[in-house]
Amino acid sequence: MNDRDAVLKANAAFYLAFESLDLARMEVVWLQNASITCTHPGWHLLLGWGPVMASWQRIFVNSEVMRFTIIDAHAEAVGDLAWVVCTENLESTHGTETVNARLQATNVFQRKDGRWWLVHHHASAVSGPPPDGTPESMH
Amino acid sequence: MNDRDAVLKANAAFYLAFESLDLARMEVVWLQNASITCTHPGWHLLLGWGPVMASWQRIFVNSEVMRFTIIDAHAEAVGDLAWVVCTENLESTHGTETVNARLQATNVFQRKDGRWWLVHHHASAVSGPPPDGTPESMH
Repeated sequence: MNDRDAVLKANAAFYLAFESLDLARMEVVWLQNASITCTHPGWHLLLGWGPVMASWQRIFVNSEVMRFTIIDAHAEAVGDLAWVVCTENLESTHGTETVNARLQATNVFQRKDGRWWLVHHHASAVSGPPPDGTPESMH
Repeated sequence: MNDRDAVLKANAAFYLAFESLDLARMEVVWLQNASITCTHPGWHLLLGWGPVMASWQRIFVNSEVMRFTIIDAHAEAVGDLAWVVCTENLESTHGTETVNARLQATNVFQRKDGRWWLVHHHASAVSGPPPDGTPESMH
């Protein structure tokens, strides 16, 4: 498997851990160190293992069902660091209500001991087409 | 200068180019290749030199004055790739109106020919404190 495919596989594993709503599964996706960073949609930056894992705990406690359909995932690896951009189509359930959201994500992975670990996650809501009616083909 | 400082310097140069509203200055910040990516606040993903530069052109044409105060910038370099997270406090002027916004950014830089080039930019609005009243000290 080339680096790009290995990184995309790690990216897919991250979203499976996200859907599991299980902190123990999310913990094994991330590199355990003080420099990991995370920005959830609309949130401030979170820095370090403790704050990042606490944020997942909070999200998982407040979620019932989350289903991701990931599209347009692009990965670029340079040595032992890689970044992935992808679009998250998220269906989440809160009681009897189902909400669909479209988000754009940046995920940074670092290779250590032969495995790609997540070191940064940034997701933000896509609020619509860019100003001035950029055609879909530009996306 | 160590790698982290060099990356932070490249990050500062990116925001100076942004403030200049001058496409020629923005073009020398980015690595000129097909794999560069960019997500402006609320936008879809842009992939490749043409779409990314067209987006800057559109932003610059529609802006009069932009002033960034960058805080909490953290850089991590692994070999020839690095990611920066930072908070952008943006003051922009549209006619007689001045708008202040707070954004969270991820910037990825790649070292080539001894220089750090921007290869990915992702910015998103910070809409307020995280759910459940996370204390400021967590940020």
